[in-house]
Amino acid sequence: MSRTEIKDYGEFGLIHHLTKNIELHNASSVLGVGDDAAVIDHFGKQTVVTTDLLIEGVHFDLSYTPLKHLGYKSVIVNLSDIYAMNATPTQITMSVGLSSRFSVEAIEEFYEGVYIACEEHGVDLIGGDTSASQKGFIISVTALGEITADKLVQRSTARKGDLICVSGDLGGAYIGLLFLEREKKIFLESPQVQPDLENESYVIGRLLKPGARKDIIEFLGDKDIMPTSMMDISDGLSSELLHICEKSGVGCVVYEEKLPIAEDSRKAAYKFEIDPTACALSGGEDYELLFTIRQEDYEKITLNEQISVIGYITEAEQGTKFQTKGGNTHNITAQGWNAFKK
Amino acid sequence: MSRTEIKDYGEFGLIHHLTKNIELHNASSVLGVGDDAAVIDHFGKQTVVTTDLLIEGVHFDLSYTPLKHLGYKSVIVNLSDIYAMNATPTQITMSVGLSSRFSVEAIEEFYEGVYIACEEHGVDLIGGDTSASQKGFIISVTALGEITADKLVQRSTARKGDLICVSGDLGGAYIGLLFLEREKKIFLESPQVQPDLENESYVIGRLLKPGARKDIIEFLGDKDIMPTSMMDISDGLSSELLHICEKSGVGCVVYEEKLPIAEDSRKAAYKFEIDPTACALSGGEDYELLFTIRQEDYEKITLNEQISVIGYITEAEQGTKFQTKGGNTHNITAQGWNAFKK
Repeated sequence: MSRTEIKDYGEFGLIHHLTKNIELHNASSVLGVGDDAAVIDHFGKQTVVTTDLLIEGVHFDLSYTPLKHLGYKSVIVNLSDIYAMNATPTQITMSVGLSSRFSVEAIEEFYEGVYIACEEHGVDLIGGDTSASQKGFIISVTALGEITADKLVQRSTARKGDLICVSGDLGGAYIGLLFLEREKKIFLESPQVQPDLENESYVIGRLLKPGARKDIIEFLGDKDIMPTSMMDISDGLSSELLHICEKSGVGCVVYEEKLPIAEDSRKAAYKFEIDPTACALSGGEDYELLFTIRQEDYEKITLNEQISVIGYITEAEQGTKFQTKGGNTHNITAQGWNAFKK
Repeated sequence: MSRTEIKDYGEFGLIHHLTKNIELHNASSVLGVGDDAAVIDHFGKQTVVTTDLLIEGVHFDLSYTPLKHLGYKSVIVNLSDIYAMNATPTQITMSVGLSSRFSVEAIEEFYEGVYIACEEHGVDLIGGDTSASQKGFIISVTALGEITADKLVQRSTARKGDLICVSGDLGGAYIGLLFLEREKKIFLESPQVQPDLENESYVIGRLLKPGARKDIIEFLGDKDIMPTSMMDISDGLSSELLHICEKSGVGCVVYEEKLPIAEDSRKAAYKFEIDPTACALSGGEDYELLFTIRQEDYEKITLNEQISVIGYITEAEQGTKFQTKGGNTHNITAQGWNAFKK
């Protein structure tokens, strides 16, 4: 594989090289890359904006994350935040900081993943930049979306009696991380040993190539179901549940037997001798949606196998409770991911 | 001064701590920090969005940049991009990555500067995050602004015969940088020597506390002057002039004797035995506005002492020319700042 040094392009050359094939798809993208700022037109709609700063060695490990997957995921985690408002993502900006260890080919691979995510979700890349970094790979993404004001769903509006739902299945990404970290450790100690990940493609895929649940938002729209609150699960179910309950001034009861855990995740967890339920509650990075609905929408929700009802909202005084299969009740505590305490 | 470790707050604690006193000022800021994404309402206006990733050791040097100034400048450089579209900035998001070398007090100082810039320009901080970094201070800012579609000014629309204007004065920030770099070098070699910057407050202020030219945009609006093209000067006048000429498919003539250079900058340049004109042409980070106007607007422009006419737009075939005080003509070349080639 050939290697082109980033300095051969220079600042303007590289971003031009990386963005020269962009076609704008949304009618609202008036002006994209190439001027001081990007412009988005509106027709009485609200703009939704979210941003993420991802830093090598803190948020991702390039020793087991292919750059194309990293580009894809960097976009997806932001789109997931847009969907979690019940909005439709429309544009992103992407800036990267790069040490000289990266070649142009490496960055192209990263952008390949970026563009695949944009394509899948009908999103335009409208701005951003590349610059040098002293150390490692730094990614800054801002995503914009639109929504009509009466469809906006916040975290703070869950009400007593509402049903608690999650999309997809939980815990897989965390178990995938455990496998990759283990194989990395083995490789560093004994580089001749081949990685043993063959049967773990499901959980590894959950970590390296998460989806953003566009399908769920479309389903809710089609069925005329307006969630009473919603957020995406990036730090773990427990942590996000506590956010919704705290912001909404309510409590909850969640049932262990209702937690959606994929069979592949369950088997993989047992290989590590850890509890799949703990992974579902506290593992991060699943990027599924957590939302509450009115009880009268229950019948409609059952039409979608990708949605599980895991409990219900109570009064704040009743606390945030988790009921195990054995019938014991525990308080839910945040064991989510925390970059500073790691 | 007391020192609180960032890990004592944790991820959610710190951003809450840093943003808890925010009041939203713009009617369009429907929802700010605290949910998955921020929401901006519109009334038939266009949204303008720009983003910047600033990395310690590449874009700034904390050995001579006070954190409060850094916070201020991080916002200003983005607002400058919004003004350069002839738009009004309305919201920003701010994410920072921090190594454990920074205390909470240090970050508070940084945010003090952020809030001063927001206050001065009537801008709401509506999102962002803090996270750990492996090394140094990393800043990611996205700014949003609004404009009615018919007022938008791009880089690509200068026409033959238009007058070329710049705001304020040029070259000062670069000369300020030379002084600070010199004093840093002296300090590293002989820490007992006191820094000798007393008479250089003008150029140092130009570097550490640049303005974003809200006043110029307001003046142009008040006087009903619609620039035919515009951008801000972040990489140096030569580099930006070439951008406008290339994007617009035109040439230009600029006169040395017309370049606005502050007396303090001129004196400071001579102390370094460098040409003040070279600083004005190639020094970056002045964050002044470069724009073109129709000849019939000339009389109106003369009412504002903060605006200098420095030349005019020609046909592309005539090239991009610089005429010295001595009457010689040179081709303008980009000597602007380039992070990768440094």
